[in-house]
Amino acid sequence: VIVTVTLNTALDVTYTVPRMVPGTSHRPDVVWQAGGKGINVARTLHALGRDVLAICTTGSSVGREIALDLSTAGLRFERVPIREASRRTVTVVETDSSALATAFNEPGPCLSGEDWALVQETVVRALGSATVLVLSGSLPRGLPSDAYGVLIAMARERSVPVILDASGAALTAALAAGPSVVKPNAEELFDVTGSRSLESASDVLRAAGAEAVVASLGPLGLRAMTTEGSWTARPPVVSEGNPTGAGDAAVAALAVGLAEGTPWPERLADAAALSAATVLTPRAGEFDAAAYRRFARQVIVDNGPPG
Amino acid sequence: VIVTVTLNTALDVTYTVPRMVPGTSHRPDVVWQAGGKGINVARTLHALGRDVLAICTTGSSVGREIALDLSTAGLRFERVPIREASRRTVTVVETDSSALATAFNEPGPCLSGEDWALVQETVVRALGSATVLVLSGSLPRGLPSDAYGVLIAMARERSVPVILDASGAALTAALAAGPSVVKPNAEELFDVTGSRSLESASDVLRAAGAEAVVASLGPLGLRAMTTEGSWTARPPVVSEGNPTGAGDAAVAALAVGLAEGTPWPERLADAAALSAATVLTPRAGEFDAAAYRRFARQVIVDNGPPG
Repeated sequence: VIVTVTLNTALDVTYTVPRMVPGTSHRPDVVWQAGGKGINVARTLHALGRDVLAICTTGSSVGREIALDLSTAGLRFERVPIREASRRTVTVVETDSSALATAFNEPGPCLSGEDWALVQETVVRALGSATVLVLSGSLPRGLPSDAYGVLIAMARERSVPVILDASGAALTAALAAGPSVVKPNAEELFDVTGSRSLESASDVLRAAGAEAVVASLGPLGLRAMTTEGSWTARPPVVSEGNPTGAGDAAVAALAVGLAEGTPWPERLADAAALSAATVLTPRAGEFDAAAYRRFARQVIVDNGPPG
Repeated sequence: VIVTVTLNTALDVTYTVPRMVPGTSHRPDVVWQAGGKGINVARTLHALGRDVLAICTTGSSVGREIALDLSTAGLRFERVPIREASRRTVTVVETDSSALATAFNEPGPCLSGEDWALVQETVVRALGSATVLVLSGSLPRGLPSDAYGVLIAMARERSVPVILDASGAALTAALAAGPSVVKPNAEELFDVTGSRSLESASDVLRAAGAEAVVASLGPLGLRAMTTEGSWTARPPVVSEGNPTGAGDAAVAALAVGLAEGTPWPERLADAAALSAATVLTPRAGEFDAAAYRRFARQVIVDNGPPG
């Protein structure tokens, strides 16, 4: 089973309005779903028919709404009950203004030492049957900055490979524990290294402990930099859509490839195709299955630099 | 005890951001409180030291958050549990743009026949000890448009006077039941009557069954049109503030006046002073107590037209 961990779980609420006019009142259409990057990864794996367990923190009544949505989705999940309330995100989508999206991300709960201990216990228990551990998203307040490093070390002790999708201090403080793959986007990669070259930035992360670096490049695809070599996967052009969740889809495909030991070029092509097929759907964690099959034949993988 | 009824209770969430930029992500400060016009009226009466009972619908986890907030506020309330979830409102306040407020009001639950029967039972039970019944705010979906009329008839059978603060069909369909006071604002009054004169519009509502009409006129104060005569209460100028809840404060004062049989000029002056003192505070249901005492001496009441 592929185990995903979401420490800063959210209830993602979408308000759809014809047009947002600052200073006025609106009557939005409302939909919501459980969110957070690890949840999105788990949804994608579930849709691919993979055996997946989503570990997620849930607090108070918002946490109950998150759990209810996950149950409805038929996703296998394990709640880590935390003391403070889980957060909401509200995204206002305007249908009249080329789907302009304005997001409000609540700061979210502060985890206690007991909350963090319970997270670790839950992850250790799940590692017994895990093929891959996926760690995604921002760290909630209250956790040590090397929290992901602690979880990676637990997995490595048990020979479970780990994919880490994080940025900033949550990423850098976790490298020493030796994640199998880290998947920053190009901006995050440049941010944490201060470098403006994909190769030299990934060299910095690999020197610090990451075994492989996969940088997501938006419409330009993915670039993998590993001990076995470097590859670029170039997806077909997806002219418009919703890039939210595209990175999570890439992580889901990389987790499958890692679990099955697929060669890097094939693994990267699959990640690029699934990511592009996710852009075609409005909701995170969903992808266009027909487009995924089509894109899988169209992605080009080579050793050259992207762009 | 003054009994307020809120059929479309809300959890009012306020997001404070320096500046809202459409198409981008924000990290707001978050506060929330139980809302809905009847809840605001009850908060004001509670702050005035009056005996008050707030009857409100609450559904699902949002309903639990509403109840938790009311408990914390020390307000006496009775929940009518409904099948669907209570709604949220989200208001985005920009601190850098002279407190520009952009509101998103979720449509809210649809009440079932059983929900509505439970509302009526709860109101009938509360009427046994009620001095005044206050009906405020929009009707949730699923209720008959004369829902307020049904509640008014129940109160009148038991000789309990009723204040109704509603607009549109919820107001017009309730008039035949004979509310003691209706309190539209000028715009709502003109809307339902098609008239552009306060006097002739209020004549229409009184001919349809309302005993008295009090129109709220924003900074111009209040105009009462009753069988005993017509008066205008002119508050002192409040140069800036938050008008949200000012109408609810006026209703709270009118309820006290109705319970105690205060003469109209005095009753109207009190309502105008309390309303103006509410504009000075940021949250609905709160007022500036010192300003209220000062304004009470400064309000001018006469028989002339407003403006």
